[in-house]
Amino acid sequence: MQITVLTLFPEMFAPVQESILKRAQEAGLLQIRLVNFRDYAISKHKNVDDVPYGGGAGMLLKPEPIFAAIRDLPQPPGKRKIILMSPQGHVFRQEKAKCWSDLEELVFICGHYEGFDERIRELADEEVSLGDYVLTGGELAAMVMIDAVARLIPGVLGEDASAEEDSHTDSLLEYPQYTRPADFEGRLVPEVLLSGHHAMIKRWRRKESLRRTFLRRPDLIKAVTFETDDYPLLEELVLEHVEIAPWKTLWEHLCPPPKRRRRF
Amino acid sequence: MQITVLTLFPEMFAPVQESILKRAQEAGLLQIRLVNFRDYAISKHKNVDDVPYGGGAGMLLKPEPIFAAIRDLPQPPGKRKIILMSPQGHVFRQEKAKCWSDLEELVFICGHYEGFDERIRELADEEVSLGDYVLTGGELAAMVMIDAVARLIPGVLGEDASAEEDSHTDSLLEYPQYTRPADFEGRLVPEVLLSGHHAMIKRWRRKESLRRTFLRRPDLIKAVTFETDDYPLLEELVLEHVEIAPWKTLWEHLCPPPKRRRRF
Repeated sequence: MQITVLTLFPEMFAPVQESILKRAQEAGLLQIRLVNFRDYAISKHKNVDDVPYGGGAGMLLKPEPIFAAIRDLPQPPGKRKIILMSPQGHVFRQEKAKCWSDLEELVFICGHYEGFDERIRELADEEVSLGDYVLTGGELAAMVMIDAVARLIPGVLGEDASAEEDSHTDSLLEYPQYTRPADFEGRLVPEVLLSGHHAMIKRWRRKESLRRTFLRRPDLIKAVTFETDDYPLLEELVLEHVEIAPWKTLWEHLCPPPKRRRRF
Repeated sequence: MQITVLTLFPEMFAPVQESILKRAQEAGLLQIRLVNFRDYAISKHKNVDDVPYGGGAGMLLKPEPIFAAIRDLPQPPGKRKIILMSPQGHVFRQEKAKCWSDLEELVFICGHYEGFDERIRELADEEVSLGDYVLTGGELAAMVMIDAVARLIPGVLGEDASAEEDSHTDSLLEYPQYTRPADFEGRLVPEVLLSGHHAMIKRWRRKESLRRTFLRRPDLIKAVTFETDDYPLLEELVLEHVEIAPWKTLWEHLCPPPKRRRRF
């Protein structure tokens, strides 16, 4: 996959040259090209920004250098998407990362300063926001998206299983994990994990994953596809957390098999 | 403000040494300390991770080095919060950034590899997630949060007005902005912005801000505090977008003054 970033701060992109993304580039799975669009500024002083029409604080990115930089990109080998980093875009999510990881080229346009001239928006196939917060520029947002997309490219993570088992990939949060020591200053690892009983461990993990999602992120539940084996676990969880009123409502909302429904 | 980051990849933190954050550090408004917790590993080979109890792919961060690194931090001069980067935490938002920007010290614990031993969670005052997507590590997430918080520290942005006028700070998306040229390859700047009529410009901007928020992020509307002057603008917008069914519902939901309500 080819990733191209239009930015005024190419030197900020050190993080995508480290660790897993570094190995992905060395293995030829990913190529990251950084384009400083200041090189396309037409004025003598290489200005890329100017004051807003109608007044107001701050500077805006001018349209010409960014249009010129995009027009100067080599023709993409296949499917390409141009992404504009913008707090006004759709909020980035795992499904978006998955969808982008199938493309052949991604181009990110990173704003900086106060914002950009409205006409720059028409270059973009998509406008995307990292989340509901304000950053000093689009560079960190682009890096986060590059990281989220790159790890889904087959071969980038050592084991394909790793990408699948994480929180958010199946809408459930991950179960608690433990490593050595079994006793750390009196804090013990749950016995079931030391038992070696695989079916019990699997059941415990699924149950804790459900518990954690219900308690911490009930908003994620609507996207979960429950399995038949989940219903006894959910039933146990409801009994273990009777103090939490929304449980009953949630349980009803889940549409459990009709014969179980009668109990509530 | 003192920001401390526990990470295995301190060299990834180049972006927080650039641009606005660089100037903030030079001006003494912000201090960023990077702690590689591998230095606190007790084994001969400086191992920081180990296989999970109960089996499964990937490696987990061990509790000892991170506990030791936190215990070794100098006593904070005042109010400190320890933040664990975790996809299972609350989703980071602008309100959180605002709230943290009043603290004297923020400590970020960045995971990497598959995850971390459950016992590490107890060190954290808060667990925070950058958004609903999976990253290869917590470093980029920590940098995004540092950026979002740092720009709110008084004096970090040149003009205090800048931080206030952005998208998300008052729950409305920003109005379209334009800079020179007034005519870019036939794409014109709206005439009102060239008029010099300040009241008209102010009205146009508020209306476009409302329009954009309704069309792009209707979910943000519930947090908006409407002003009396907004009602005529909303009325115009409803008429300009009759094709969009949710408008009427939204309008009713807004509880406009009773005498206006009759019209719908």
